[in-house]
Amino acid sequence: MSHCDVDTEIKMASPSRMKDATVLRKVHTSWSSGLLLAALTLCVLTSGCNATDTDIALDAKATLNHRIQSLDLLVFVFLLALTVLTIWLFKHHRVSWLHETGLAVIYGLIVGAIIRYAGTSATLVHMQVEPQGVPTYTDKLPPDTLWFKYPVNQTNGTKLPEGIKTYAYVFRGQVHDVDENEIDLKATFDPEVFFNILLPPIIFYAGYSLKKKYFFRNLGAILTFAIVGTTLSAFLIGGFMYGCVKLMPKYLSSSFTFLDTLYFGALISPTDPLTILAIFNDLRVDVNLYALVLGESVLNDAVAIVLSGAIQNYGEHYSNTGEFETTAFLRSLSDFFSIFLLSLMIGAAMGCLTALISKFTRVRDFPLLESALFVLMSYSTFLLAEATELTGVVAVLFCGICQAHYTYNNLSEDSRQRTKQIFELLNFLAENFIFSYIGVSMFTFPKHHFDAGFIITAFICAAIGRAVNVYPLSWLLNIKRKPKISSNFQHMLFFAGLRGAMSFALAIRNTVSDARQTMLTATSLIVIFTVVIQGGAANFLLNWLKIPVGVDDETEQLNNYQVHSDVENGGGGRGKLRLSGGTESNLDTPADGPNGSLGGPSGGRRRNSHEKAILARIWANFDTKYMKPLLTHSRPTLLETLPVCCNPIARLLTTTQQLTQDGSEFRRVDSDSDICIDNDTGNGLGQDVGPGTGPGAGRRNSLSRMEILEHVQSPVSTRIRLLGFYGKKL
Amino acid sequence: MSHCDVDTEIKMASPSRMKDATVLRKVHTSWSSGLLLAALTLCVLTSGCNATDTDIALDAKATLNHRIQSLDLLVFVFLLALTVLTIWLFKHHRVSWLHETGLAVIYGLIVGAIIRYAGTSATLVHMQVEPQGVPTYTDKLPPDTLWFKYPVNQTNGTKLPEGIKTYAYVFRGQVHDVDENEIDLKATFDPEVFFNILLPPIIFYAGYSLKKKYFFRNLGAILTFAIVGTTLSAFLIGGFMYGCVKLMPKYLSSSFTFLDTLYFGALISPTDPLTILAIFNDLRVDVNLYALVLGESVLNDAVAIVLSGAIQNYGEHYSNTGEFETTAFLRSLSDFFSIFLLSLMIGAAMGCLTALISKFTRVRDFPLLESALFVLMSYSTFLLAEATELTGVVAVLFCGICQAHYTYNNLSEDSRQRTKQIFELLNFLAENFIFSYIGVSMFTFPKHHFDAGFIITAFICAAIGRAVNVYPLSWLLNIKRKPKISSNFQHMLFFAGLRGAMSFALAIRNTVSDARQTMLTATSLIVIFTVVIQGGAANFLLNWLKIPVGVDDETEQLNNYQVHSDVENGGGGRGKLRLSGGTESNLDTPADGPNGSLGGPSGGRRRNSHEKAILARIWANFDTKYMKPLLTHSRPTLLETLPVCCNPIARLLTTTQQLTQDGSEFRRVDSDSDICIDNDTGNGLGQDVGPGTGPGAGRRNSLSRMEILEHVQSPVSTRIRLLGFYGKKL
Repeated sequence: MSHCDVDTEIKMASPSRMKDATVLRKVHTSWSSGLLLAALTLCVLTSGCNATDTDIALDAKATLNHRIQSLDLLVFVFLLALTVLTIWLFKHHRVSWLHETGLAVIYGLIVGAIIRYAGTSATLVHMQVEPQGVPTYTDKLPPDTLWFKYPVNQTNGTKLPEGIKTYAYVFRGQVHDVDENEIDLKATFDPEVFFNILLPPIIFYAGYSLKKKYFFRNLGAILTFAIVGTTLSAFLIGGFMYGCVKLMPKYLSSSFTFLDTLYFGALISPTDPLTILAIFNDLRVDVNLYALVLGESVLNDAVAIVLSGAIQNYGEHYSNTGEFETTAFLRSLSDFFSIFLLSLMIGAAMGCLTALISKFTRVRDFPLLESALFVLMSYSTFLLAEATELTGVVAVLFCGICQAHYTYNNLSEDSRQRTKQIFELLNFLAENFIFSYIGVSMFTFPKHHFDAGFIITAFICAAIGRAVNVYPLSWLLNIKRKPKISSNFQHMLFFAGLRGAMSFALAIRNTVSDARQTMLTATSLIVIFTVVIQGGAANFLLNWLKIPVGVDDETEQLNNYQVHSDVENGGGGRGKLRLSGGTESNLDTPADGPNGSLGGPSGGRRRNSHEKAILARIWANFDTKYMKPLLTHSRPTLLETLPVCCNPIARLLTTTQQLTQDGSEFRRVDSDSDICIDNDTGNGLGQDVGPGTGPGAGRRNSLSRMEILEHVQSPVSTRIRLLGFYGKKL
Repeated sequence: MSHCDVDTEIKMASPSRMKDATVLRKVHTSWSSGLLLAALTLCVLTSGCNATDTDIALDAKATLNHRIQSLDLLVFVFLLALTVLTIWLFKHHRVSWLHETGLAVIYGLIVGAIIRYAGTSATLVHMQVEPQGVPTYTDKLPPDTLWFKYPVNQTNGTKLPEGIKTYAYVFRGQVHDVDENEIDLKATFDPEVFFNILLPPIIFYAGYSLKKKYFFRNLGAILTFAIVGTTLSAFLIGGFMYGCVKLMPKYLSSSFTFLDTLYFGALISPTDPLTILAIFNDLRVDVNLYALVLGESVLNDAVAIVLSGAIQNYGEHYSNTGEFETTAFLRSLSDFFSIFLLSLMIGAAMGCLTALISKFTRVRDFPLLESALFVLMSYSTFLLAEATELTGVVAVLFCGICQAHYTYNNLSEDSRQRTKQIFELLNFLAENFIFSYIGVSMFTFPKHHFDAGFIITAFICAAIGRAVNVYPLSWLLNIKRKPKISSNFQHMLFFAGLRGAMSFALAIRNTVSDARQTMLTATSLIVIFTVVIQGGAANFLLNWLKIPVGVDDETEQLNNYQVHSDVENGGGGRGKLRLSGGTESNLDTPADGPNGSLGGPSGGRRRNSHEKAILARIWANFDTKYMKPLLTHSRPTLLETLPVCCNPIARLLTTTQQLTQDGSEFRRVDSDSDICIDNDTGNGLGQDVGPGTGPGAGRRNSLSRMEILEHVQSPVSTRIRLLGFYGKKL
């Protein structure tokens, strides 16, 4: 019963697709209720079936397959339910040394061990075949399907013409080691399920829930860590591993090429956001650290998947000799960048398209339709990228970021809640499923290859790679960076480098050679170790490194449907100080703003502007002036930001709602966490960017806004208050 | 490009599972952006590929497959997005003659036609094979996999040892009509996706969103229509079709057995809830009619699936001759009932288990965990039923009903919203996907078999079957029924018999023989016709039959996240009258209740009790007294309803929350639509059921509740008010 094919539910019917009899419920036989019984029944039915008709036996087998596959999936679903209940119990009793992902892994390990040692493995029967008669098929590729007449020869030698049936067989893949062992195909988990079903919602949610304020504030550091750091770490691990492997016994060293170890470097470099952020979320850790860890781990997933793809391309297409070739290397490099950038652009474009649709139609009157559209557009981003040979994961990540940044503001209140909640739930289920599976697969996956030397080396290399990622880059960043990354933060960043879903998915994708199987085993163990041990210890380390926790972030408050555990140890002085000039109160007391622009920076705000990265500032400027007015209902409108000559176009792209929105609407938009920074940046811009655009720029903005407002009837008192405020300014 | 394999995304990687090279993005070649280009590329790449290495060609093919499959799915996702936008446009402009499902079908037809006539179909290559050497395999069943050495013989006759590779082929199914045509396997949509992916959320949502108040009030009629009516209709259509088919040309009549036409009867009998209810919802039609149509169409789906399964069993297992056999018939009959009842019980049991978990743990403190648990338990119901050879669809339907009836009351406010919204969205997407697919498949599905005679007969039979379902049964019901089903309602019930997802799913499940293909075509056309034409005409017919619309149901108000189109033509006098003694205000003015029990029946209420079915009354009594106190936090508690001797157990099963809940909590639970009837029934019981339990019973209840309340500290003023109220009563 080692059938842990998780996608079985999805594809269970393929064997019966063409058959006359369907997989629908059959004779209501006594059914096996347990894991073991099902395996027994399989043996009984396949070997001891007395029915004379092959059809019925075949049908019974298909039914049985369907049942076993349902049972397999049921095991995972129950496992998840159990994990959920235990997580609740742990949260209820404030257990902090084991977190949900760790729990999922441990439960998975237990169930995997039970399945392995209690169940029997039913191997598949195979038969060697050859073409009938003289083959007329001369293509280079093997045929898509084989048609096979059975039974060809009955044991008694007599042929029954009506007993001969033709069966179709579908191409599955290459068989290596024909002599060695019968691989149980069914037990092979289809790695594509990770990539096409489980990863997209996880990655999308990561983008959709990015705390954009602090994300953009730390954009430079995040990009450095994610792109430079991951690549550096991949090559370093690859090189070091290659050296170590060559010192190992012959049978292992011969199976590893440099590309293999480089691939290992690429897959082991990305860090997993889930566990560490669950901990950070519970403890409400310092927001900058949170943003660094989240941003890095989200982006390095994207970098790693493109990097590993480029490495594979290098091996398969460009390099014929396996040696280093400059042109091949350069082509791989250009692949890497072009795929990454194109995927990014597709994702961003689809996000913006959704924003435009939601802005210019009134689909928000029907929240169900709106949510459906949102989900469909987001999923089509993934499909579009995959259909065009780009990386769906990268596209969906940036689509998520755009959706959160623009579309979210156009959505109805109901759709905001719904989309957030749906992706939150999908993310939760998918993540925990993956971690459960990692646990189970340690015992049931037939292609593990344990090699103590390699595993130990891999652990050391993973740690070194992480260290190279964090410390030198932090040092470099600290040269220019205003709020320096303190050494305690660096230690925490190093420690937060848990490996997770992406590493495992990349490792299990390809397990044909010994080298790859060894890599899978090492990766699985590293994931399990880091998630369970490092994840469990994160809490203590945060205390030990005296990193502020219990920081009250206003974004958290918006997240009102999520009950956070009420850890309140008040150590968040720093974070609180920064947030004291909070944006939420900006528009409630517009007279506070001394600069003539809405929500102008107050004291706390001005101090913050120093901390922003230049990259973030340039982007925020462009964003506030052109992107947001185009894609959302936010102010200032394009009428104000575009040159006068473009007014007709600008008018076309500005909605009435944008022009007429009242104070309450204003405040609603403004209380979004993602707009905070941009308003603040857009307004602070006047003083920060150049002296020539000083206070005058602010006044110009308010002037033009004034002109518009004069032509619009103001029904709400807030509006009048605002107008009064502007009037005073003028 | 007739590859409309919708589950391709899900299973796209199977061909590459074992290969050394993965399906990951490959050389960044120029990519085809359209539908036609992809087909062209396929031809170019597969035929004109010059790469010497088979691996690379194979790999490119796998990549291409993946891309085409992504593209296929993308077409559907875009189609859905387009449908969503058009629906919005229609709703926006108050277009009532075409509804969302009709729209999905029409768009599907258009896209299907484009794909059919613009694209080229790339057929799969197959090869006849035979066992290598002397076969040693003597099982009755064909082997699970074939291992195939390729290339065996190159055209030039020389064997290249290193060029020989062994490929695995997986069993797919039987090939019929070996000589006839090469069926493009890829274009075959896997019908199991309907059953295992798309139907469960639809059916679960149907159960979860049943308007329980009127559902239970019309329980007798609904059960009669659903069980008796569907069976009757199936047999009648089956018999009539058989007679007609025998009069048809030989080639058709010979391929149909009586079981085939009976199966057709079973699959064409169930009616589809979605379209008609969307219309009813928009118009806020009379609640009783709504309940009848909804209840019937939900339940007859379940009946039809079990019935068709029983018919297949009869044909496959019990009857060897194909003639009528009494024992075989009886065994099928017992199958039918045992499978239906066992599935029902599994569903109900899982629902109750979820209710118990949510009641006795405080998992509601963490809404995300709670929602996850809810989803996992519901899905595991489906899997459990499938794993035990029962019908997952039936189980998940009754699980949904139980979840709504019990678990829903225990959930946190957040989880209520979230679960409702998630399943609403899933339901919407799945339904529209199916209807899109029905449209597309009319053109792309290769196994359609048009026969005008059969199709016309099928249309007539479907109408007759519906008429037999509605009119005689209504007449029978009207003998005993208090609010008689008026003839106008009967006409509307007849007219509301649209066919939909379930019929199509059952028809496409098996398309091997000519008979089955003819049935599929007829079913598709009936579904398209009824959904587009009947669905579009429903609005006019409602007016013509003078059926009250614009009824303001309190359940609708609870549904606050769904914006209803504001059709308010005030013709709902009847419905409004009934609702005037609404339950929502019951607890706000407890002194109104003259019977000493909470929310005692007022004038309007007492009148209603006559209208309730006896079945509903008995059930409601049991439900209020035992089920609800056990499974939810509702009152009265088990301490009050169970005999005194069971007090220790009752105390164990009663939560502190149940004992101490204050007024606001009370009102919250009470304002659920589903509790309204039960409170009302439970309280009205005292007077209705028997004279011996008259007012005294009511007082006993309030007495024991009083005793409990005396021991509990009352923090809330409402509680005190209530206590005062009870005190007065005593």
